[in-house]
Amino acid sequence: MGRITRRIRVHRVTSSRPAVDIRGRADIVGVEEPLELRIAGTPFTTTMRTPGDDVELAHGFLFSEGLIRSREDIAEVRYCAGSEGPDGLNTYNVLEVVPAPGVIINPAGRRNFTTTSACGVCGTSSIDQVMERRSCAPQPVQLDPELLISLPERMRGAQKGFDTTGGMHAAGLFTTDGELLALREDVGRHNAVDKIIGHLLMTNQLPAKDTVLAVSSRASFELVQKAIMAGIPALVAVSAATSLAVDAAREAGLVLTGFTRFDRMNVYSGDEYLTVDNNG
Amino acid sequence: MGRITRRIRVHRVTSSRPAVDIRGRADIVGVEEPLELRIAGTPFTTTMRTPGDDVELAHGFLFSEGLIRSREDIAEVRYCAGSEGPDGLNTYNVLEVVPAPGVIINPAGRRNFTTTSACGVCGTSSIDQVMERRSCAPQPVQLDPELLISLPERMRGAQKGFDTTGGMHAAGLFTTDGELLALREDVGRHNAVDKIIGHLLMTNQLPAKDTVLAVSSRASFELVQKAIMAGIPALVAVSAATSLAVDAAREAGLVLTGFTRFDRMNVYSGDEYLTVDNNG
Repeated sequence: MGRITRRIRVHRVTSSRPAVDIRGRADIVGVEEPLELRIAGTPFTTTMRTPGDDVELAHGFLFSEGLIRSREDIAEVRYCAGSEGPDGLNTYNVLEVVPAPGVIINPAGRRNFTTTSACGVCGTSSIDQVMERRSCAPQPVQLDPELLISLPERMRGAQKGFDTTGGMHAAGLFTTDGELLALREDVGRHNAVDKIIGHLLMTNQLPAKDTVLAVSSRASFELVQKAIMAGIPALVAVSAATSLAVDAAREAGLVLTGFTRFDRMNVYSGDEYLTVDNNG
Repeated sequence: MGRITRRIRVHRVTSSRPAVDIRGRADIVGVEEPLELRIAGTPFTTTMRTPGDDVELAHGFLFSEGLIRSREDIAEVRYCAGSEGPDGLNTYNVLEVVPAPGVIINPAGRRNFTTTSACGVCGTSSIDQVMERRSCAPQPVQLDPELLISLPERMRGAQKGFDTTGGMHAAGLFTTDGELLALREDVGRHNAVDKIIGHLLMTNQLPAKDTVLAVSSRASFELVQKAIMAGIPALVAVSAATSLAVDAAREAGLVLTGFTRFDRMNVYSGDEYLTVDNNG
């Protein structure tokens, strides 16, 4: 695509007392652009994302939000013709999702978008929604804790966007033996995960049994939800997990780790699936 | 509130070959819970946030999205009565926003939510929307680059949630002399910024002239937009900036820095507002 990163001019300021040094230099930043999803011609949502794998992103988003149940629910996803920017060129920033005949994709069915008249909104209800919508429970799988600890470093080796920008998020799907199956980079973590899930959906690999999903940065409820929806049995985060991420992972039987870096990690959920072989 | 962090039990795994050590320990995570905003009785949006300062969050969100123009547009924000969770207690997770008489808050007016029939969606149109909606241009102010570099460290000293969890985002508003005016922590960066802006709106301090906003983590378009809407003249990010964040900052005359850590920073926009006194 060539639009994943962009070269710009910046001023690098270095403070070494008593002097401050300011000099211009070239720099590379991650590209962020809006992507509007339309469903059957009606604007549904706009997400800020890094261009590339947009069709996968649309599939993954709709699937992990529980708005579609299979790839057969979608007849076609195409860039909107006539979507020109100020330069007269197609922006490739509007995607038209065409549902399969007879399928209705209802935006109001989005997670947390509708509530009951009793207006009881809480973490438990958010988790309940996910549990009701997931297509299957994750298949338990025994995991090697040392392997889980190594995944962020393995993912890091494949993050070309991060190499050049120092600031793009990534999601990497691994086998339980540590083989990298798919990697996506994006300015938004959730987009990187949606691109992975969309890829799995489009290639008929869901539910993603016997896999581990690694994500840069933190584990929020949203990322745990996406892993659950895709039937991924383990989520490895480089940084912290939130309370609701932990609760959801425990409810769903998802292995969730955080602060997975250097030689250690915190296991928030699913420690019973860790196999330790200290004789190996 | 007491709900900002929560104590949980985790397993800490340490890998020191040839042995792997797994032991249970107490840990503290940042609380994440859904907050549903209702406008005149109709559900508008649900955001995952750390409880606390919810009324400020609602004000800041509506203002920075351009849905309200002043605090007088809102008659009242209150927790929805009858919003009970499974334990029968009010969850305090549903906020009812009552517009002032004659004021219509139109959810469809949200950034990027509506598009033209020409369906041209691109970074430029996103920036144009913000420029049209901002209440005023930022007042240019000369800034000391060494002071900007010091702000993340100053903010860090006040981040109690981060101290206990290692994983909460923060936004801090400073005077141009480096005095901390307000700090908010949240599992979501955008929420922390909205809480700051809502606080400023409710205390009649917008536009926030002669201030600098510091944010943990990266600078996305969304955060730049919020700074522009609030009339804040400078945004200091600890990590990277995205392409659209840089473009928007340059268009609006916002000082934007990234990788602001240790003794250096990258200035993506507004270097003309940096005053260097190497004789001081």
